[in-house]
Amino acid sequence: MSRPLLIPLPGNEEFADLLAVPLEAERGALDVHTFPDGESYVRHLSPLEGRKVCLLCSLDRPDAKFLPLVFAAAAARDLGCAQVGLIAPYLAYMRQDRRFRAGESVTSVAFAGLVSGQFDWLATVDPHLHRWHALGDIYRIPSRVVHAASHVARWIASAVDAPLLIGPDSESEQWVAAVAADAGAPHVILEKIRRGDRDVQVSVPDVALWRDRTPVLVDDIVSTARTMIETIGHLKAAGMRPPVCIAIHAVFSGAAYDDLLEAGAARIVTSNTIGHPSNAIDITDTIAEAVRALM
Amino acid sequence: MSRPLLIPLPGNEEFADLLAVPLEAERGALDVHTFPDGESYVRHLSPLEGRKVCLLCSLDRPDAKFLPLVFAAAAARDLGCAQVGLIAPYLAYMRQDRRFRAGESVTSVAFAGLVSGQFDWLATVDPHLHRWHALGDIYRIPSRVVHAASHVARWIASAVDAPLLIGPDSESEQWVAAVAADAGAPHVILEKIRRGDRDVQVSVPDVALWRDRTPVLVDDIVSTARTMIETIGHLKAAGMRPPVCIAIHAVFSGAAYDDLLEAGAARIVTSNTIGHPSNAIDITDTIAEAVRALM
Repeated sequence: MSRPLLIPLPGNEEFADLLAVPLEAERGALDVHTFPDGESYVRHLSPLEGRKVCLLCSLDRPDAKFLPLVFAAAAARDLGCAQVGLIAPYLAYMRQDRRFRAGESVTSVAFAGLVSGQFDWLATVDPHLHRWHALGDIYRIPSRVVHAASHVARWIASAVDAPLLIGPDSESEQWVAAVAADAGAPHVILEKIRRGDRDVQVSVPDVALWRDRTPVLVDDIVSTARTMIETIGHLKAAGMRPPVCIAIHAVFSGAAYDDLLEAGAARIVTSNTIGHPSNAIDITDTIAEAVRALM
Repeated sequence: MSRPLLIPLPGNEEFADLLAVPLEAERGALDVHTFPDGESYVRHLSPLEGRKVCLLCSLDRPDAKFLPLVFAAAAARDLGCAQVGLIAPYLAYMRQDRRFRAGESVTSVAFAGLVSGQFDWLATVDPHLHRWHALGDIYRIPSRVVHAASHVARWIASAVDAPLLIGPDSESEQWVAAVAADAGAPHVILEKIRRGDRDVQVSVPDVALWRDRTPVLVDDIVSTARTMIETIGHLKAAGMRPPVCIAIHAVFSGAAYDDLLEAGAARIVTSNTIGHPSNAIDITDTIAEAVRALM
């Protein structure tokens, strides 16, 4: 049986090189460019007939990426591939999971519908599941979710001296507690005390007891970095050391990365689900497992 | 029976104001913006239940427009509209109508498939039909094509003194001849004489007989404007007056508009299918007819 064909969309080549090894996949190639009129051109450069095709595309900043991705999938089918799956290390449109105000588009559902119509399966890393409990709630194709927690824990245990994991709020407790246990480190959850609609204070009572520890902030997505920057302020006020900031998905909108460094992060570390200079945690091995199960 | 609800995507508001009159439609409103992480937010600001909804979005530079458009359509359905159609004065992805090289995505088919899954009907103006003879070849929803030729002819007859219509090549003959007849003006088709793979000369034999006429170049799409610029060169060489350049769809990639002016266009005129300072031919009345038939 022939090996699967792993084809990266533009910007995903490095990740494909890493993933091809544990996946035991052949690297396929794609020519994607934009015509002067703003339309996309997509051409497969590898023979696809009868092959199991894995398209690889991290879906941060998704709007401009979507049509080329669909065109690549449609062409793969036309060209006689046996199946075409999507590996999206970062999955888009998971945040709008209900109609918060009348008239809103529940984009998570609409996007899941579109993707489900184009691919045979979907593999992703820690999607932002909040009101949806599983991808199967909105995606109608087989899917696998890969968790980066154990890789994060391993990185902390190996690279941080005397770590203390910090959860920015009670929502983060379950996730932070699990990583901490895995890393063999203690953890503390900051508490928001709401005194009124606009008066929210954060209590850092226990943190002061851990002054000789290296604080480690962990979150799933870092986009504007506002939560982490705020938390750093509270830790500073409590006399803690500059923290290590870890996120799985390095979205970093605008100047967020520089803002976070300026706010006092000792180091910023992310997994490689979205290519970024802060990437230090490679999660390709667990993706390979998930993809093998889906194929 | 309630009036149709005409809802423009961002950038289509002016066209909606014009179209609402002959369509006897109510203007609906939509809030579309981009989150810091690059995802789109879409919210209908008009009640949609039981209404016939017409989403209006010209699809030049289509990639970034596509997901917000689909989200608006999906939300309209969720919110209980009676039907949701798409008015795309300029329709994207009509040019790649076959696989010119092995492995290419036939984007016209893939795009038509996506759009057909989201809308109940489609109205557009002079799509670039070449190998496809009708939208029904690739779109599986009811569609209507509006022709701008008579509006172009009317504009020429009213605004150009002693016009001579010029077709840049034999492919344009049918279209140019029809506009010329409608405008009551003569026409000339330039002939490409191929002497070898790279040696193509353009003959302008008859043009010299029309030195007292105002040349009028007409094309469906002006994108890079290379064809028009080249044609202007031939007319200059033949001692003709600076021509009036007319296109239905003002795509104008990069600096094409300035390039065309610099090359010697006396005036550049387009229809309002794509908003541009050169718009001078309003085609909303014929679109209204087509939409009424589709609804």
